[in-house]
Amino acid sequence: MNKEKVVKIAILGMGTVGGGTYKILKDNRNIIENRICKKIDVVKALNRSPRPEYAEDFITDNIDDILDNEEIDIVVECLGGIEPATTYMIKALERGKHVVTANKAAVAANYKKLMETSDKHGVKLLFEAAVAGGIPVLTAINNPLQANNFIEIMGILNGTTNYILTKMQEGQSYEEALKDAQKKGFAEADPTADVEGIDAVNKLSILITLMFDKYVAPEEIERVGISKVTIEDILDAKSASETIKLIGRATLRDGKLSYSVKPERISLSHPLSGVDNEFNAVYLRGDMVGELMFYGKGAGALPTGSAIVGDIISIAKTL
Amino acid sequence: MNKEKVVKIAILGMGTVGGGTYKILKDNRNIIENRICKKIDVVKALNRSPRPEYAEDFITDNIDDILDNEEIDIVVECLGGIEPATTYMIKALERGKHVVTANKAAVAANYKKLMETSDKHGVKLLFEAAVAGGIPVLTAINNPLQANNFIEIMGILNGTTNYILTKMQEGQSYEEALKDAQKKGFAEADPTADVEGIDAVNKLSILITLMFDKYVAPEEIERVGISKVTIEDILDAKSASETIKLIGRATLRDGKLSYSVKPERISLSHPLSGVDNEFNAVYLRGDMVGELMFYGKGAGALPTGSAIVGDIISIAKTL
Repeated sequence: MNKEKVVKIAILGMGTVGGGTYKILKDNRNIIENRICKKIDVVKALNRSPRPEYAEDFITDNIDDILDNEEIDIVVECLGGIEPATTYMIKALERGKHVVTANKAAVAANYKKLMETSDKHGVKLLFEAAVAGGIPVLTAINNPLQANNFIEIMGILNGTTNYILTKMQEGQSYEEALKDAQKKGFAEADPTADVEGIDAVNKLSILITLMFDKYVAPEEIERVGISKVTIEDILDAKSASETIKLIGRATLRDGKLSYSVKPERISLSHPLSGVDNEFNAVYLRGDMVGELMFYGKGAGALPTGSAIVGDIISIAKTL
Repeated sequence: MNKEKVVKIAILGMGTVGGGTYKILKDNRNIIENRICKKIDVVKALNRSPRPEYAEDFITDNIDDILDNEEIDIVVECLGGIEPATTYMIKALERGKHVVTANKAAVAANYKKLMETSDKHGVKLLFEAAVAGGIPVLTAINNPLQANNFIEIMGILNGTTNYILTKMQEGQSYEEALKDAQKKGFAEADPTADVEGIDAVNKLSILITLMFDKYVAPEEIERVGISKVTIEDILDAKSASETIKLIGRATLRDGKLSYSVKPERISLSHPLSGVDNEFNAVYLRGDMVGELMFYGKGAGALPTGSAIVGDIISIAKTL
């Protein structure tokens, strides 16, 4: 094995996802280095506040310490939010650094600009973690399924809302289920982005772009959240052997693409109906492969970190 | 788009899978050529008997017409069976041709020799279609999940047996269900390879090799088929909220890998329990990503062809 090349990595943001990525690169370093036949080294992390648990010169609050460092091969963006994340990613790409991100909001909002910049500078921008966390659905769409014309996608793309709907199915009210989700760490103090479908709309925008080769901005997608779903709705669905899920959907019919994120009644015989609690799933149909479903954890430090490190490995193999 | 490079392809065997592959390359030629930015051309096919529906010089019964043709970039092996398929693949690799195959028996039996030959000659051997047909599970294991130490895999890897067990669940006897499967084209006249788990053992051997970096030959895997499963077994499982599935399993515990293909009782709360009829599914656990499941069609001309053409596209992109 030639381990002379050291792949140098910087992480922007050492919160949940950045911390998970760092942990995987540390804990599974041996197996990762064996798989890529190169050494890896996380040399720098951007964080607003100092983190005494890391070496003193590892954390910086100055993005230029990372952008100006010519040794850094890959910048991993885990800040979240559209800005300053997009600006930092663009600058990193312009300086010839590959970028890996889990940031659905930034990728959905600025897809064209980000891709054009990475193309122009001959570097990669990968974002498997941005949609459905640890589930490798973007890689599947971009590679082994490329023989297909895609016909339809239906996704349970947000774990918080799926957890709440599952608990309502079990008899809790919306308010009780939301509180339960907040207590378990599945929902944030301000749950708007999740419960109103904003997070799911960002992910659906990315899926549509990859599957149908057509950029649809998040704000163009019809969006209804789950905050108006009542126990009566749930019971009514149940009596018809159906369950209510927040579905991100895009369907191509007679050459016309339609899309929405909204609560839908799903037959109990549909593969998505059994996807409960905080799990995510993506169901899709291609003209050749037929029906496919991918199921797993759509959030959390380690599942999301798994997808990020998968992208790092994919880039590292080419260095 | 630079479409000057023409990727030249030969198909060995124009049966179900070879015919499906040819159909996809023909029907979806435009979208495939756009995605790879190259033209594709299926120039030759090996078939024992003439096929009047194709151009006269397209079909040959002489493998050397393909091996000696220096213009052919990719050989697609759809003959099935260990020989002469393995010999043909080795010869094609030795002549610098990339090989794509759906042949689980040949890959499982001769994994090391095939991989060594492709490595030695700097060409690719890809076999996504060999395990779980159209479900892109091998690509997932080999790429986006590479950050993980794998802990467990459980697969419903054979559609024939899953169809029979589903029908038994609905009240048919084993004999009735087998006849039904044969009538629908899901089971062959001699169903031994399916119902006795031989097909599933080949697929599990390949999965183990990729996930645990350890070659386990098919004949080393404990194997029990479904021909001894009775209606009483099914009812007994049902009364305990379980269902019987033919499971290919490999589990790593305390550093020790155990593996088997046999009928298992699966709790109705397990994601695999709802995988019915001719569908396949692969459930796996990684130390970072947690639980994942992939679901779809494990056989048939077009789902299998989708995976084969996915591999062709992946190679064509690098040419």
